[in-house]
Amino acid sequence: MIDDEALGAELLARADELAAISAGPGLTRLYLTPEHAAANALAAGWMVKAGMAVRTDAVGTLIGRYEGTTPGAPALLLGSHLDTVRDAGKYDGMLGVLSAIACVDALNRAGRRLPCAVEVAAFADEEGTRFGCGLIGSCAIAGTLDPALLARTDAAGTSMGQAMAAFGLDPAAIGRAARAPGEILAFAEVHIEQGPVLEARGLALGVVTAIQGATRLAVTVTGVAGHAGTVPMGLRRDALVAAARMVLEVEAAAQSEPGLVATVGRLAVSPDAVNVVPGQVRFTVDARCGVDARRQALVADIAARLNAVAGECGVGLDVVTTHEEAAADCDPALQALMAQAAADEGAASMALPSGAGHDGMAIVALAPIAMLFVRCRGGVSHNPAESITAADAGLATRVFGRFIDLFAQGLETGHGA
Amino acid sequence: MIDDEALGAELLARADELAAISAGPGLTRLYLTPEHAAANALAAGWMVKAGMAVRTDAVGTLIGRYEGTTPGAPALLLGSHLDTVRDAGKYDGMLGVLSAIACVDALNRAGRRLPCAVEVAAFADEEGTRFGCGLIGSCAIAGTLDPALLARTDAAGTSMGQAMAAFGLDPAAIGRAARAPGEILAFAEVHIEQGPVLEARGLALGVVTAIQGATRLAVTVTGVAGHAGTVPMGLRRDALVAAARMVLEVEAAAQSEPGLVATVGRLAVSPDAVNVVPGQVRFTVDARCGVDARRQALVADIAARLNAVAGECGVGLDVVTTHEEAAADCDPALQALMAQAAADEGAASMALPSGAGHDGMAIVALAPIAMLFVRCRGGVSHNPAESITAADAGLATRVFGRFIDLFAQGLETGHGA
Repeated sequence: MIDDEALGAELLARADELAAISAGPGLTRLYLTPEHAAANALAAGWMVKAGMAVRTDAVGTLIGRYEGTTPGAPALLLGSHLDTVRDAGKYDGMLGVLSAIACVDALNRAGRRLPCAVEVAAFADEEGTRFGCGLIGSCAIAGTLDPALLARTDAAGTSMGQAMAAFGLDPAAIGRAARAPGEILAFAEVHIEQGPVLEARGLALGVVTAIQGATRLAVTVTGVAGHAGTVPMGLRRDALVAAARMVLEVEAAAQSEPGLVATVGRLAVSPDAVNVVPGQVRFTVDARCGVDARRQALVADIAARLNAVAGECGVGLDVVTTHEEAAADCDPALQALMAQAAADEGAASMALPSGAGHDGMAIVALAPIAMLFVRCRGGVSHNPAESITAADAGLATRVFGRFIDLFAQGLETGHGA
Repeated sequence: MIDDEALGAELLARADELAAISAGPGLTRLYLTPEHAAANALAAGWMVKAGMAVRTDAVGTLIGRYEGTTPGAPALLLGSHLDTVRDAGKYDGMLGVLSAIACVDALNRAGRRLPCAVEVAAFADEEGTRFGCGLIGSCAIAGTLDPALLARTDAAGTSMGQAMAAFGLDPAAIGRAARAPGEILAFAEVHIEQGPVLEARGLALGVVTAIQGATRLAVTVTGVAGHAGTVPMGLRRDALVAAARMVLEVEAAAQSEPGLVATVGRLAVSPDAVNVVPGQVRFTVDARCGVDARRQALVADIAARLNAVAGECGVGLDVVTTHEEAAADCDPALQALMAQAAADEGAASMALPSGAGHDGMAIVALAPIAMLFVRCRGGVSHNPAESITAADAGLATRVFGRFIDLFAQGLETGHGA
């Protein structure tokens, strides 16, 4: 048995090396930048040391391939992304790339070949920080990348197509990144949880059930603005008082059953003056669940509650759905395999949904997906305070290696996913 | 008996003439501007026609004086202001100047002299739109104008002192505007209500009991920001959910007794992102009452309620008092005189506090004050939609004239205020 602490410390040291590749202070590494190229080069070196053949695909995703017993065999795809948000943490994405490389390295050092190939993808752009659209690398591999995105521009006015050309890629050739369905048997990713559930339960690991779907609403509440001194309470139609009741109804709707979340993240008051009764309030609702039908029921419940409050308060209500994304289920057989891997390695784990989006949301169109979550301190991510322990990183890598073995055994016995 | 409709129509026509004196489209007439000078000149002409001697005081307030039976006698001061907010209505302030001039005009046409002089003030700056501090003209007359305000600058960087010099005034001489206590017997003002109470009660007129005092609070609620997808409802400390409960507690506190108002007029969420659980919310509270002790009790009640919510929600709470202004009581004897004047003229009226501030708040330091409110449509003011009827304007002027008579009779019989 590998020493988790020592293995994890190696991973964290590599994460530190990657974090040094940044535009400006803090960690900011965006798609198709010199930092992207430098991170790819650093990771490529580690892939080569782990016995992999390395290439960069048509959109800039770095892919290492470790052949199986038969060269050219279909692959188990592992990995995560190397791009970041602005002022990011060191582990969101990077941990999944590093633990996958470490697992292949272990196979290579042991001289083992599996009945399938193992590929490690360092996806080029999951966060979408530069061009406002993420999952570029994974959509490209899944064959679902919309070429219209090449026209998207960054803050400096550079289009994605221009940036690709400057990076040495051919924007006309992005279709070549797509993999044929038979080439990829399954996709598995290690990722920090980005939430507080595992820490609260005292568990290092979680087996992801689904990447939650999300519905976003834009809500406008229209009352009557008035003078804060001259309009008596009984004659007011205060849009903020109505909106406050609605915020609490959104909260109550999400609390009505476990596994639902709903958030009012933005709220703006008009005219927003200390001495004026608010005439209008605009707010957003973000509702998520791992099961699409339950999320849709939640959204319907929220809409009904908002309507009831509007009627009681005598205010106008306008609700627009601005975003709707279906859940991406993790494959039940792969979930079971991941849970077994944890059990085999003596690690307690729990099943939980992913509230954040991940590359698996795109890859699920190509192959069944699995995710292993790792506890992070305080649930904090997208922040320099992002933190994991070496022991947890090592344990996750050991469990992930066991998952790869179990997956390979399933192929041999015909019981694989 | 004067025809209210015809008298009112004359007043409204004069209000239209004044409204044509504006900087830019809509009605915007600021302190110490060419529009201020032009409005003073127009009103001065009407004052002279009404038999008054006219002067401009040391801060730009236009004052017309109609001598009593004994020249140089103490005066009953009437009037209101000629300055406006930006994109203002035509009656806030102006109605009080015009109805006062009309009352003096009636005395003059009848050849009547009273045992006191009657003065009409067209206060130079009540709204404070240009320099961010109002009640300039009335504070100057009351002798409470702070010379430090001369250093205040407008948006273009011009100081009040510089603007006075450009207007032809001597900023070193502003103290000369102050009136000695014995010179002014009382102050009375006609003003639109700026609220919906009279309209809701079907009454044209209201006798003001007090200009409400106000307390303003700046409240900061600090929870914990988090990912809207990954943080389960039970592990959240959502600052906006806590703030929403607080908004409803402010509402409930003000509704606990008649005569109180409290408003959350501003509210800002941080980080204000659709997919982030709010970590901090800042909002304002504006609490008013015509009775200071009751307002202070209301503020204490609100503070206790906010504390209770913060405790229950596990969020941080910071409450800062940013503004505290005592109520200005209208003189009880003058209130009784105004109510009697309405009754004498066959007009129903009600007693009500003023939620908005007025020049009387300053003059009360010099002399007892009275105010007569006139119904305005929808309670709307500080807005081009500000609207009153000719009949209401005429009725108010007739009642105000009767009030002047009753005041003068009181002086003769020794029962005056």
